[in-house]
This record gives sequence, structure tokens and C-alpha cells, in this order.
Amino acid sequence: MSSLNVGVLGFGTVGSGVVRILDEHKSKISQITGYDIKVTKVLVRDLTKTRRYEDVDVAVTDNANDVIGDPSISIIVEVMGTIDIAYDYVLKSLRAGKHVVTANKDLIALHGDHLITVARENNCDLFYEASVAGGIPILRTIVNGLASDHLKKVMGIVNGTTNFMLTKMTSEGLSYETALKQAQELGFAESDPTNDVDGIDAARKMVILTRLSFGMNVSLDDVSTTGIRQLTVDEIKLADQLGYTIKLLGIAEEHNGAVDVCVTPTLLPKTHPLSGVHNENNAVFVLGEAAGETMYYGPGAGELPTASSVVSDIITVAKNTKLGTNGNAFSSYVHETNKLADKDCLAKYFVRLKMTDETGTFLKMTQRFTEQKIGFSRILQLPESNEQATVVIITHETSRENLHLALETLKNESGIVVNSHYRVED
Amino acid sequence: MSSLNVGVLGFGTVGSGVVRILDEHKSKISQITGYDIKVTKVLVRDLTKTRRYEDVDVAVTDNANDVIGDPSISIIVEVMGTIDIAYDYVLKSLRAGKHVVTANKDLIALHGDHLITVARENNCDLFYEASVAGGIPILRTIVNGLASDHLKKVMGIVNGTTNFMLTKMTSEGLSYETALKQAQELGFAESDPTNDVDGIDAARKMVILTRLSFGMNVSLDDVSTTGIRQLTVDEIKLADQLGYTIKLLGIAEEHNGAVDVCVTPTLLPKTHPLSGVHNENNAVFVLGEAAGETMYYGPGAGELPTASSVVSDIITVAKNTKLGTNGNAFSSYVHETNKLADKDCLAKYFVRLKMTDETGTFLKMTQRFTEQKIGFSRILQLPESNEQATVVIITHETSRENLHLALETLKNESGIVVNSHYRVED
Repeated sequence: MSSLNVGVLGFGTVGSGVVRILDEHKSKISQITGYDIKVTKVLVRDLTKTRRYEDVDVAVTDNANDVIGDPSISIIVEVMGTIDIAYDYVLKSLRAGKHVVTANKDLIALHGDHLITVARENNCDLFYEASVAGGIPILRTIVNGLASDHLKKVMGIVNGTTNFMLTKMTSEGLSYETALKQAQELGFAESDPTNDVDGIDAARKMVILTRLSFGMNVSLDDVSTTGIRQLTVDEIKLADQLGYTIKLLGIAEEHNGAVDVCVTPTLLPKTHPLSGVHNENNAVFVLGEAAGETMYYGPGAGELPTASSVVSDIITVAKNTKLGTNGNAFSSYVHETNKLADKDCLAKYFVRLKMTDETGTFLKMTQRFTEQKIGFSRILQLPESNEQATVVIITHETSRENLHLALETLKNESGIVVNSHYRVED
Repeated sequence: MSSLNVGVLGFGTVGSGVVRILDEHKSKISQITGYDIKVTKVLVRDLTKTRRYEDVDVAVTDNANDVIGDPSISIIVEVMGTIDIAYDYVLKSLRAGKHVVTANKDLIALHGDHLITVARENNCDLFYEASVAGGIPILRTIVNGLASDHLKKVMGIVNGTTNFMLTKMTSEGLSYETALKQAQELGFAESDPTNDVDGIDAARKMVILTRLSFGMNVSLDDVSTTGIRQLTVDEIKLADQLGYTIKLLGIAEEHNGAVDVCVTPTLLPKTHPLSGVHNENNAVFVLGEAAGETMYYGPGAGELPTASSVVSDIITVAKNTKLGTNGNAFSSYVHETNKLADKDCLAKYFVRLKMTDETGTFLKMTQRFTEQKIGFSRILQLPESNEQATVVIITHETSRENLHLALETLKNESGIVVNSHYRVED
């Protein structure tokens, strides 16, 4: 059986997981690909550090050219997790005619478009299944399994850290700060949690999902992004009283050939399949014109789940090599990129206000919404101390533009403070 | 752009859905395949009947040879739903060098092995994504997305009719008979519901899932099958008291290179992702050594979901045609078929007994279980009238052999009646 050699850039948890799976599942993999696939060389940062998976004989180097320039290596796995250096190495690898598999969502979200072009020019495969929702094979499912369908909406819990925190805040009533601390102690959150809690990580994944689901290249700036930093346990309890669970969702939807992508805390009915996704798990919910509602659930991160997706990509490269069909884009579905205007982006919203308990304040508030043609489907008023009341509104469907106009005018009203507004999905 | 003509055998809901999707999603499909794909001829039973999707110009015939023998047709879609005639037509199609896409689970469960061989001999593609879990692209996910992994267990809610009935019995307390009647009125269940309620339909799907997940050819006779006909609302309530939901699951699991496949009512913790799958929806839960727990959820049937899976298969055939790679098996993972012995098939069980309320009966019962080394993790005793008590036991893990031995000896004890036993998954 002929060999296919793999070079790995980066030897953290995912890199060593790749070495391990290729070794442990050798017989299945060689049977389905017809190749003996193994990692022969690994780029590490520190040659003196001990390796996590010592059983397999792998050459180690701290010089990237030793790996990228090795003519016996045909597949490069990039699992370093930075952006600039990874971009440089991946470009060099593709130009050297190597197929590339990467788990790097930041790289693909920011530079995917150019890398896909370079890969095609060099007749190379470029796959990145592990970049979104770790162990869930969601990208390949969208590209192949749902190929026949016209997708209308893709909603995902695509950040495990914030889902873990929200689960703790919901089920144990932990504060944001305590939930964050637990996530940090368990290694789910970085010491600087900005990328997770402000929705940036989720937004990057949504850029990738949008490209494959709708064939459109949106940039990170196009994603309207709100994280969970300002979310309180009070709001979670209010949502619960109204029959909803709050999840941080990435939502990409298409309407008349234009797409809107956002990341926002979202109220979901408790019976919605995404409501039951707990802890650090991820799930992507897809609405197709024909297939209807399908959902894909699993671990969003972790050494072996992520490595398993990387190895599935390697297997696809190997099959393509056997069939002589390398160099076709992961997805050939390309559509002119049109961004849905805020006036056409319709949704229901949860709005939380604080109002002085004075005659006329409620009327003023109602007027501001009515001026923007926003109706209410539910209202909950809770008395508070200091003559202040908390009012929670679930609106009927309205445009993002109208909602923002209403909230802007409300901010100028005395006696009314807008605490927060989140999306509601049914 | 060159054309690819499709002939459809059977023009019920799925057949007309295929015509419709190929027409409505024409531009996306031609972009990703490079072909103008259309249905040009359809086999119907009755030429005088009106067609469901009239907008597309399709020739209709009641002679199968008009379709199979048409040299301008390269892909045959079989959506007739019988076994013998479908088998004959599919064989003829493959031998005539046509690629075949079928939604026929019975055909694939019973004759898949031979058809796969004939397809390969004739350099033809044979795909059957729609045969399991309608609109969920589960087969392709197992074959490609999870290719790198060593799967350990596949558990599925793969019959929508019984899941609908169990949902009604659980949430509304309907009796089995009333739930069945509702399912029949809504068109989910046939007038003779045997295949659904006795688990036969689920068993056929598990044969297909087992082939792709573990590379093993089990026959229907190898699947230990219990349906829901004997399940009572009382049992659902007892399970609920113990924190469980009852679902009809197909379970295929591998242990030391041997596989066990069963269909059985199963108690799942309410927090298990499969517990939240309601109504006629399907879901398949996969446990992989590396990827961990993933789940795939969606509609199990229906015109457009099923047709959407058929069209995804057609798209794969088209891509293969473009690349010149037809004739490779859907899955090339083949493993020697070993059946796990009942003594090695371990699980926890729910056992429901009726016992006369007499000194010594409980001791006798406990002795019979202890003799087979079966321990109890939970016991619930409910007093009833006529000096009879209902006792429910959740056992510790035991082998299927030991459970059956214990139940056999219990049946010979006076004052003890074994009402039912179901599996418990944690």
C-alpha cells in the first residue's frame, strides 16, 4: 500500500490528537482510503518540551520550512491557532503544492476567500471542517448532505464557552462573573475572555457557515455582534417566566437573495431543539426550503473531537488523491454577496426597560414603539423599589431598523432607561 | 451546459418532490454540479391519474422498460416502495449501466449487499440516503463526516410514527389505541400499522445504519426487535417518576469487534438529547471513540425532506460523473460480521412485575435476580387492589443472557407475573 505523509504545524492538543487518531484508527483509514497515512514531521515551538503522544515515531522540528519544504509530505495540517503566521505558512504550503487541512476559524473567516483561490490555482485541496463546531461534521453536511436544498436560515450555538456559562447561569443561578470564573478554571475560557463573551469567536464561525450555506462572502464587519457580557441572571429568569431559554446564537438568514448575519443573545421556546443544548456543547440548526428543520449536535471543541474532524478532512484529501480529483473547492456554490438592509431584517425582540412608576411614562413608552409600528405580544411589569419598575416586552415581528429607531427615541425620554434588547425566535 | 437526464420509478409524494426540487433549485444545482439535471421520464401505475407537480414537462409511462431502457437517461430514481418489483427494476437499471438512487429502506435492508456488488461490477453509483431518517443526511455524515472515527454505538429514533405515538402518550396521556388512531388519521400510520408499531421498519433502518457505521452486514433476523404494542401509559408514567422518557430506539453497538443490533422501547434520562425529540421527528445519536457524542435531528419522512435527500444523492452522482469517479461504493468500510453473544451484550433494564402481596414473594423475586448476579439500582413498589402490587426495578448493568434467564425463572414462580422489560440508557 502506498503511503501518504502528513506534516503537522503546531503540536498542542489538536495536533497530538491527529497523530493519535491516525495511529489508532490506522486499519479503518487505510481500508477506506487505500493509503497508509501517517504524520511524519511536526513543527513545534519548543524542541525541549515533552510531547503528549509519545508512542508514535514522529520527527520534530522548530523550523517550518523543514515541514513545508519536505517533498515526501503531501498534506499539511495547520493547527497553530494564530492568524498571521498561519496565513503565511498555509499560503507557502499551497504554493508548494501541498493540500492543507486547518482547524483555524480565524484564518478561514479572515482570509478564506483568498486561500480558496490560491488552493484552486495550485490544484490543492483546502479543508477546514474542524474550524466550526469542533467534532460536528457540519460543514461537509451543508456542502454535501444538504446540497440539493435552498437553505433559508442557519442558527448555531457555535461557542462552547458562552454556552457553558449560560447553562450555569440558567440552571444554577450563577452570576456572569462566577460562571466565567468556573469556565476559566475548567479551561473552557481564556484569561482574557473577550473573543468568547463578546461574540467575536461566534461571529467568525458564522462568516464560515454563511459562505458554505448561502455561497456569500460576508466579512466580520458585516456581522452585527452582541455578546453576553451585559446579560444578567435576572434577564434569564424573566425569560424563563415567559417560557424561554436564553442562548447566544449566531443567526444567518437569506431573504430574496440577500443575507443577514448576526450574533446575539436569543430567547428560544423551551421546546426548541437548541434549548436543550447544554454545557460546552455546540449545535447548528438549519432550515431548508425542502429538508425543513434539521439540527446537528455535538462537542464544539476538545482534543479528540476536533482532531477527529481534521482527520476526516485528511481522509477526503486521500480519497481525492486516489481518484485524481484534488483541487476542487470544498464548496462550489458561489452567489453574489448581498447584505439584507436593516429595514428588511425582521424578527421579534425582547426589550427590558426600567421606568419611573409615574402616570404617563407607560404611555410615552407605548407611543415610541407605536410610532415605529411595533406591536407587543407580551408585557411583564415587575414593581421594584425606589418607585422604579422593570418592564419586559416581547414585540411582534418588526424590522431591525424600526427597533433601533424606537430604542433611540426611548433613550431621550426622561424616566425611561433601556436596559437591554435581545432577539426572540419561535 | 451538458444535460443529465433522470428517470423516476414511482410518482407518489417523493417522486413528485424530486421533480419539484430539481426544477425549483435548478440554478444552485447546475452551479455545483456543472450539469443541467432534469427528470425526463416517470413510471406511473395509472396513466389516467392526475399528477401532483404539473408545471414541469415530464413524459409519463406505465412501462418500466421505457424508462430503464431509455439511452438518454443516466440516473434512475427508485421511489416505488415495494420490494420484489423494485429489486428487479434496480437490478435491470444497474445492469443497463444506470446509476441508481433509491429511498427504499426495505430493498436496501434486504438486498443491499447484492445490489452494492452489482453496482460496482457495472461501474455504477448506488446511493440510498433517503432510506434512513428521511431528511437527515445521516448516512453521508457517517460515511464521510465521521470517517476518521471508530464508532462505538449508534442509537436512533428512526421511526416517526411510533415517536409521534409515544409523544402523544407521554405529553397528553393518550392510550396506545387513541395515539395510533390519531397517527392513522394524520396519515403517519398505515391502516395495518404492524411494520411501525412492532419495530420492523426501525429494524430495517438499523440494518442499513449498522452496515455503514460498523462495516458489518447483519440480517433482519439478527436484530432483536420489540415494538411498542404492549407499552402502556402506566409504564410511561412509572418511567417519568423515575426521571426517564420512553422512546423506541434502534441501538447498534460494537464491542471487541462484534456487533449487537436491537430495536426496543428504551428509558432515557430526560436530559438526554434523544429525549427532546418529539412528534414524528427522527434523530440519530452517534458515539465515536474520538468525536464523542454527536446527534443528527430532523424530519424522518415527508415529501420534500425525503425528496431533498434523494436529490442530494443525484447531485453526488452528477459530481462523480463530472470527475469520472462513478462506481465507488457509498462506503468502502467492510469488516467481518461478528455478532455479539447475548452474554456479552450489557445493558441496564427496566423490569415491571406484578406480585401478590404475600410474605416471601419479594424474597423469591430478589433471589431469582441475585442468582443471575443482577443487582438493583432503583426499586419502586406501588400497592394495588386485590392484594397485588406493581414492582418496578431498574437493574445495574447485566448481560441480555442473564436478564432472560432471570425472567424465565421468575415466570415459573407462583405469585409473580413479569409484565414487561425495556432497556435503560444513561
